[in-house]
Amino acid sequence: MNTAYVHGYNPRENIRLQDQATTLVDLLHSDTTFPVGSRVLEAGCGVGAQTVTLAKNSPGASIVSVDISEHSVEQAELKIRAAGLANVRFQQGDILQLPFASESFDHVFVCFVLEHLKEPGTALQKLKSYLRPGGTITVIEGDHGSAYFHPDSDAAQAAIQCQVELQSRAGGNALIGRSLYPLLVAAGYRDVWVSPRMVYADSSKPELVDGFTKNTFTAMIEGVRQSAVEKGIIDPAMFDKGIEDLYRTTEPDGTFCYTFFKGMGKA
Amino acid sequence: MNTAYVHGYNPRENIRLQDQATTLVDLLHSDTTFPVGSRVLEAGCGVGAQTVTLAKNSPGASIVSVDISEHSVEQAELKIRAAGLANVRFQQGDILQLPFASESFDHVFVCFVLEHLKEPGTALQKLKSYLRPGGTITVIEGDHGSAYFHPDSDAAQAAIQCQVELQSRAGGNALIGRSLYPLLVAAGYRDVWVSPRMVYADSSKPELVDGFTKNTFTAMIEGVRQSAVEKGIIDPAMFDKGIEDLYRTTEPDGTFCYTFFKGMGKA
Repeated sequence: MNTAYVHGYNPRENIRLQDQATTLVDLLHSDTTFPVGSRVLEAGCGVGAQTVTLAKNSPGASIVSVDISEHSVEQAELKIRAAGLANVRFQQGDILQLPFASESFDHVFVCFVLEHLKEPGTALQKLKSYLRPGGTITVIEGDHGSAYFHPDSDAAQAAIQCQVELQSRAGGNALIGRSLYPLLVAAGYRDVWVSPRMVYADSSKPELVDGFTKNTFTAMIEGVRQSAVEKGIIDPAMFDKGIEDLYRTTEPDGTFCYTFFKGMGKA
Repeated sequence: MNTAYVHGYNPRENIRLQDQATTLVDLLHSDTTFPVGSRVLEAGCGVGAQTVTLAKNSPGASIVSVDISEHSVEQAELKIRAAGLANVRFQQGDILQLPFASESFDHVFVCFVLEHLKEPGTALQKLKSYLRPGGTITVIEGDHGSAYFHPDSDAAQAAIQCQVELQSRAGGNALIGRSLYPLLVAAGYRDVWVSPRMVYADSSKPELVDGFTKNTFTAMIEGVRQSAVEKGIIDPAMFDKGIEDLYRTTEPDGTFCYTFFKGMGKA
């Protein structure tokens, strides 16, 4: 195990947090805490969905969160102020050309960003240049090819495939999770370590069924209906059947599986 | 959480278990130990592949291992004696009509068996009748729909699908892992709890790449070539390309994912 450098990777210390790991936030974030005084770059903060957790879990770290969208940065800043957190500074910027000096951060954090990029490998290389030698990167991405469920359904898989196809046409990769290891290695990181975080929801875990299967995953797939139909990727009746079948997996005898990948490496 | 009876369970522990397990045996078995003096039924022991681990991990338990094949039972017995284990008694028997009195066991263990049965639900019901009230069942099954990898390959998925199709034609279900929860609930077990055990192999984990991706999973798929081709399920060139692509995932930049499901319930 080359995890000594992963700050806060202390199972006992985090058991209390993880006992409540009925939510995605716990599953993905609870073992990411950065030390007091450390300089952390969050690359691609969007509207701050992950920033609040990041800032709460590392209250003594000095976080700089950037996003390419000025509007998103403003939203993220409102969110973090509303949460009463003061350890984050926001800045608009392109992940491929950020205005920071070399080696000016101890840690970089990237969550749900690489999936949207045409050149995720280049982004990882650039981000490495901002890390001091020995500094770490933490990357979290999903993988839509990891979704399977009971009852099984070709229509549901076809609906999910619409999202994969749309993301691909936009230059991204909705199956990127499984590739984090080679991407980090190719970008020059050392001691690369990838930890899959599988979400498994059955009716004994109602928080995950609602919070993840229904309101996160299925809602996201539902959201691409118009684009997918307009672009002729799927027949609307098939798509609607797929969504119906995804909801079917949230009934008492249904199950749903999805895996996120958390990758770490050293500069 | 109805997991008090599951030794060592919590989500954090589950992540640790998955990250640190270097072998399938660790991943699947390390949290299954039965107390001194307990009466354990292993239903469907085959040639004893799991029996050795089961007996080693519960040295004080009194295990009865049964299989429908007399020949397999003999092989299993040789294996357990060769391992110097004395806490297992073997017996030939059909899982649907075993010669045991009601409530004569404290625990039932079933591993890689339900996937082969036409009526797994009926088998689970029958097995429940041999458990004392409050006794537990532990079921481990794979799910071939959980296999995905980098580089991705349609041919590799088609080769895997051959195994799924052949198992289905034989009355089994190679996708049964995802269904353990509803199967156990429908069979009348209480406090059902399913814990997915994901195998994630990249080149930082050479034991898993060799021990699982190559020598377990890909070897198993390779083994169905003749049947799949003879039955016209796949073109031989496509199958061979699929196997080649599965081996491709074991190169330094490859990754491989597969998930087993471990289900538990109380009689």
